[in-house]
Amino acid sequence: MLLLKSLKGEKIPRFPVWLMRQAGRYMPQYRELREKERDFLSFCKNVDLASKVSLLPVELLQVDAVIIFSDILVPLEPMGVKVEFLEGEGPRLEWDGSVKSLKKISFSQVEFVGEVIRRVKAQVKDVPVIGFSGAPFTLMSYMVEGRSSKDFKKTKLFMWTSEQYADLMKLLCENLLEYLLGQIRAGADLLQVFDSWAMHLSYEDFEEYVYTYLKPFFEELKKHTDKPVIYFFRGSGSFLRALENLPVDALSVDWTVDMVSAMKESSKAFQGNLDPALLYCDEESLQKKTLEFLRCIPRKTKYVFNLGHGLMPDMELSKVKLLVDTVKGYRLS
Amino acid sequence: MLLLKSLKGEKIPRFPVWLMRQAGRYMPQYRELREKERDFLSFCKNVDLASKVSLLPVELLQVDAVIIFSDILVPLEPMGVKVEFLEGEGPRLEWDGSVKSLKKISFSQVEFVGEVIRRVKAQVKDVPVIGFSGAPFTLMSYMVEGRSSKDFKKTKLFMWTSEQYADLMKLLCENLLEYLLGQIRAGADLLQVFDSWAMHLSYEDFEEYVYTYLKPFFEELKKHTDKPVIYFFRGSGSFLRALENLPVDALSVDWTVDMVSAMKESSKAFQGNLDPALLYCDEESLQKKTLEFLRCIPRKTKYVFNLGHGLMPDMELSKVKLLVDTVKGYRLS
Repeated sequence: MLLLKSLKGEKIPRFPVWLMRQAGRYMPQYRELREKERDFLSFCKNVDLASKVSLLPVELLQVDAVIIFSDILVPLEPMGVKVEFLEGEGPRLEWDGSVKSLKKISFSQVEFVGEVIRRVKAQVKDVPVIGFSGAPFTLMSYMVEGRSSKDFKKTKLFMWTSEQYADLMKLLCENLLEYLLGQIRAGADLLQVFDSWAMHLSYEDFEEYVYTYLKPFFEELKKHTDKPVIYFFRGSGSFLRALENLPVDALSVDWTVDMVSAMKESSKAFQGNLDPALLYCDEESLQKKTLEFLRCIPRKTKYVFNLGHGLMPDMELSKVKLLVDTVKGYRLS
Repeated sequence: MLLLKSLKGEKIPRFPVWLMRQAGRYMPQYRELREKERDFLSFCKNVDLASKVSLLPVELLQVDAVIIFSDILVPLEPMGVKVEFLEGEGPRLEWDGSVKSLKKISFSQVEFVGEVIRRVKAQVKDVPVIGFSGAPFTLMSYMVEGRSSKDFKKTKLFMWTSEQYADLMKLLCENLLEYLLGQIRAGADLLQVFDSWAMHLSYEDFEEYVYTYLKPFFEELKKHTDKPVIYFFRGSGSFLRALENLPVDALSVDWTVDMVSAMKESSKAFQGNLDPALLYCDEESLQKKTLEFLRCIPRKTKYVFNLGHGLMPDMELSKVKLLVDTVKGYRLS
């Protein structure tokens, strides 16, 4: 499988490509299936619909990987956190604020995720299936803020001053290990861990409050699986210095990170990082800019094409298809 | 003057300190004066009120610099852009979209800014007065978006695809030079240029669409004044590599930039970059974290303490005062 070969640094004829949020609202076919369940979490838990949606990007775009359709907040429910998605407002989370009252989870409690993986695996051949989770810090932020945030004021106060911080991070690490390894047992070919919110921290705070937990977390994960692991983080190229020592196979970075320079100095595989806003351009500019971007990649392997962040609902399917085709047409001679 | 000495790299007994948005809504005394003018731009143009407000931080906090009270959008009005501030919603800008219809400005059209500087200068002795402007890219963004933005979609499309982009950036550079040099003639001791939005670009786009204009802009500025110039940019530590060659005296960075490492590799002075959210902590944590931060600064000069971004309306004056006092009490033996 092309993507796995590239992560390993084997010789490849072209760069593999998949896109974050590749199954999403920008697709008419997604919107049609989405209507069949009112509530977003019920939609994720409907194995039939979640499997069908996961496969749409392979059918419509011929991307080089399937990421299972789910949400990073899924493993929080069995921990004892009430999770709701409000129409047009995003997630709302509720718990009593006491880490002691939270539970250790078992993958059997979210077995629908395993079933989606098995169904998707049965449908695709030469394309790997990506299992995923949120990173401990990002999930902790959602729990503490109770929703998306702009300033992460509550998160930072909790992190800087609460004696519960270490306990919550450790519990999340433990539960996420169970959650990710369950996905591997169900058949996932690789894993991606999403850290969307660590970007709001200073380098010093990232080292002290995130990296301290992240390193043993990935070490433990790697003890139990030899499947590749990708760590996605938004923003702050400053963190790359610390991340070089993280036991993951690839770093997935957003477009504000100088990935070209980073690749020259790192032994890790990289994934990313085209600015998704390019999809709002006319077709000619999109194609031209994508090719310019590809020509700057200083390697012929150990790279996976992706955007710096997820696709947006107001993007056009035809342009997303053009983007994928442009990357697939770029040969590594 | 302590701040100027530090920028030059001279020996200093302690680090100088001032805070972005140090005169603002968090101060009861500001809110009282603010009530005297309904409209925000009229408030900036009221020389009497703007001078009084500029001086509040020296009176109440004993900071080491006065930044004149004004707004980065002020020089856009005489260019032919309609600028309004809507209560609780921020700025709204309107123009006909044709760069040819925009005008070259003269500082005499915004002479109230000069008058504020003269009045403030007359009131303070050992404290320098900072003149400022927005950076060309940030002002272009406001003009193209018409307001604050989250995704900078219009800005990026304009930048990537419009033939007017270069003309608008050149006109802004020319007008901002006039605007900044007018402030120097009025008596400003140093200048700060705020680039709040360049953080949303990739490194490649920053080089091609921002740095290309920024470098000649600062070169031209430096031909006409020997006063120190500080360039403030938010986000992206990735840009530091390019900025090392920018002819400015100091880089002011936000807390997501690994400033400690940057300082070790750079000959520039630095300003920043404590996470402003620390001001939401209890007094003990605020003091402790501030001292920890100061102890990590790898220099004894060429540094100015500041936050990574501006003060927020819900911060407490007493804690801001404690922060300033903590920095002033930290001796460089």
